[in-house]
Amino acid sequence: MERRYIAVIVGGGVASDASCAQARSLGHLLVDAGFRVASGGRTGVMEAVSRGARLSEAWREGDVIGILPGLDRGEANPWVDVVIPTGMGQARNVILVAMADVVIAVGGGAGTLSEIAQAWRHGKPIIALMTDEGWASELAGKALDDRRDDIIHGAGDAGQAVALAKALLGLDRPG
Amino acid sequence: MERRYIAVIVGGGVASDASCAQARSLGHLLVDAGFRVASGGRTGVMEAVSRGARLSEAWREGDVIGILPGLDRGEANPWVDVVIPTGMGQARNVILVAMADVVIAVGGGAGTLSEIAQAWRHGKPIIALMTDEGWASELAGKALDDRRDDIIHGAGDAGQAVALAKALLGLDRPG
Amino acid sequence: MERRYIAVIVGGGVASDASCAQARSLGHLLVDAGFRVASGGRTGVMEAVSRGARLSEAWREGDVIGILPGLDRGEANPWVDVVIPTGMGQARNVILVAMADVVIAVGGGAGTLSEIAQAWRHGKPIIALMTDEGWASELAGKALDDRRDDIIHGAGDAGQAVALAKALLGLDRPG
Amino acid sequence: MERRYIAVIVGGGVASDASCAQARSLGHLLVDAGFRVASGGRTGVMEAVSRGARLSEAWREGDVIGILPGLDRGEANPWVDVVIPTGMGQARNVILVAMADVVIAVGGGAGTLSEIAQAWRHGKPIIALMTDEGWASELAGKALDDRRDDIIHGAGDAGQAVALAKALLGLDRPG
Repeated sequence: MERRYIAVIVGGGVASDASCAQARSLGHLLVDAGFRVASGGRTGVMEAVSRGARLSEAWREGDVIGILPGLDRGEANPWVDVVIPTGMGQARNVILVAMADVVIAVGGGAGTLSEIAQAWRHGKPIIALMTDEGWASELAGKALDDRRDDIIHGAGDAGQAVALAKALLGLDRPG
Repeated sequence: MERRYIAVIVGGGVASDASCAQARSLGHLLVDAGFRVASGGRTGVMEAVSRGARLSEAWREGDVIGILPGLDRGEANPWVDVVIPTGMGQARNVILVAMADVVIAVGGGAGTLSEIAQAWRHGKPIIALMTDEGWASELAGKALDDRRDDIIHGAGDAGQAVALAKALLGLDRPG
Repeated sequence: MERRYIAVIVGGGVASDASCAQARSLGHLLVDAGFRVASGGRTGVMEAVSRGARLSEAWREGDVIGILPGLDRGEANPWVDVVIPTGMGQARNVILVAMADVVIAVGGGAGTLSEIAQAWRHGKPIIALMTDEGWASELAGKALDDRRDDIIHGAGDAGQAVALAKALLGLDRPG
Repeated sequence: MERRYIAVIVGGGVASDASCAQARSLGHLLVDAGFRVASGGRTGVMEAVSRGARLSEAWREGDVIGILPGLDRGEANPWVDVVIPTGMGQARNVILVAMADVVIAVGGGAGTLSEIAQAWRHGKPIIALMTDEGWASELAGKALDDRRDDIIHGAGDAGQAVALAKALLGLDRPG
C-alpha cells in the first residue's frame, strides 16, 4: 500500500515542555501507525515531532521529512531523514499542506491559525491537537467557511489525533 | 514624502455586488488620500479595488499594483498599472503583506482568515473591513495572539478604513 | 500607449566602476525612451541602473521597480520607486523575467548565464550588454537551443541596447 | 553513515530514447552506489532516472525523491517514493540544487544551461553527463566564472558519472 503523509504544522513561537512532549508522542504514534511525518524540520515542536517519529520502532528510511524555510540543509534538526531546503521562508508551509494526506495543527498562535486556514483552503482534512487554549482549540469542531462540508476535527491528545487520521483516510477498517 | 502602500487582501471566493462596490470605493478613497494600492491583481474584489484606485482623480502612474499568482502578465485586470507576475500561486500573498505599510482585509472566508493571520505574524497594522458576517468582522477588535500589543482594527466602511490607515501611519496630524 | 518594461538582469558579484557607469547610462536612456525599468533592486549594478533611471528627466512615478530577494523593503536601493519584497532569494529572477517585455543582461558570471538561459526558456527577447569578456559577450549572436528562431542580441553599449529594445518591440517605426 | 543526495537536473524538452536509457542507467547505478536520487519528479528523462533508481536492488524507502513544479502530488511519475509538490514552477530547481551533495546535469538545452549555472552559483559540485552535443557537453571541463577553483566535470556515461560523484565526495577511498 502506498505510504500516507501526515503534515504536522506548528505556528512557531515558544514551545512549552508540555507541547513538546505531546508533539513527540504524536510523531512516535504516527510512525507506529504506518504514516510518514512531514514538518517544518527545525527546532522546538518541529524537532519534538521529528524525534518522536525517528525513534519509533516502526521507523523506516524516508519517514521523517523536513521542509526547511531556508536553503541550508544544516538548518534541519538531527532527526529529519529527508531534508528539503526551500528558500521560501514561511511560504514553505504551502508545500507541507500540499504534500499531506492529513494535516495536524499544533499550537495556539497566529502562525497555527494561518496554516489551518491555508489547509482548509487547499481542501485537506484537518485535525487540531488541542494543546492549549489557543486557535487549535478554538477552531476544533468548526467550519472556516462554507466551501467545505466538513469541520476541523479536534483531538484531545496525540493518540486521538492518530486514530482520527486513520479514520479520515479509511484506514481503520478491517482489511 | 515617500509614498505609502496599502495592500488590500481578499480571500478569493465569490464576490458579491455589495463587496465589489465597497472595494471600489475603498480603492478610490485610498488613492484620493495619497496611498498606492496593491492587490492580487485579478478579478472580482481585486478588480473592483483596482478599478476604484485607477479612476480616482488623484491617480498617478505606479499607484495600482497587482501581484499575480501566475507568470502570465495577461492575468491582470485592466486597471492594474504595475503588473508583477510571480508564479507563486497563493503564496504570493506573502509579497502583498511584506510590501504593505498597512494591510486592509476584505471578506469572510478561509482565505481572508489566512491572510489576516499572516499579516499579524509579519507585524503589519491590519484593518478588517466588515463587509459581511465572516472572519473580517469576527476578528475586528481582537488580538490573534500575545506577540503583539495591538489589535485588528475594524472599519465599518471604506471611508473609516482609509481614515484608520492614515491614523495608524500618523498621517492624520497637521503638518 | 501601455508602458513597456525592461528587466535588467545582473549576475551579482563584484561591480566594476565601468559596468556601474554603463548600467547607469542604460537606466537613464531606457527611461528617456519611455520604458519602465525593473531590476533586482539592491546594490552595485542594480543600484546604478536604478539611479540612472530615476535621474532621467523623463522619469515618472512607477518607472523604477525593484524586485528584492528578501522580505524587507529596506533592502531596496534609494532610487527604486516601486519596491517589491519577495522572500524568494535568487528565485525572484523568475519574476523579473516574467514581467519584462525585453530582458537586458549585464555581466559575465554564472549568475548572468543562468538568467539569460532562464529568459531564453521563457521566450523573452534578450539583449546582452557586452561589458566585458564574460558570458554576456560570449552568448551575443547565438541561440541557446533550437526552441527559438531568434538569437541573443549583442549590444556594444547602453545606447545600442536601448535602440535594440525599441526595434525588438516595433517602437522604432514612425507612428 | 548519512545518506548522500544526488540531484539529477534535466532541462526539460523532448527526451530521446537514448537519453532516457542513459538516465535510467544513471538512476540505477546511483542507488546501487548508496545514493538517494532527487529529480524534478515528472515525465521523460525525470521518469527514466526515477525508474532506474526505484528498480535498483539496493533501493530503500526514501531513495527516490521528486520535487514537483506544481501543487498536485498526482503529477509525480509512479517511481517517485517521496513526492514534494512545490507550486513554484521552474523555480523549484533551486530546491533540487540546494538539497544535493552533487548535481548531475543531463541534456543540451537552455534549461540544462540555466540549472548548471545555478548549481555553480550555489557552490555545488557539478557533473555534466555528455549525452549529446548540447550544453552539458560544451561546458564539461570548464569553469563558469572565477568564483570557484574547480570545473564542471564531464562524464562520458552513467557509470563514469557515478564514479565521479563518489570521488568528489571522498567515498571512493577504502574505509
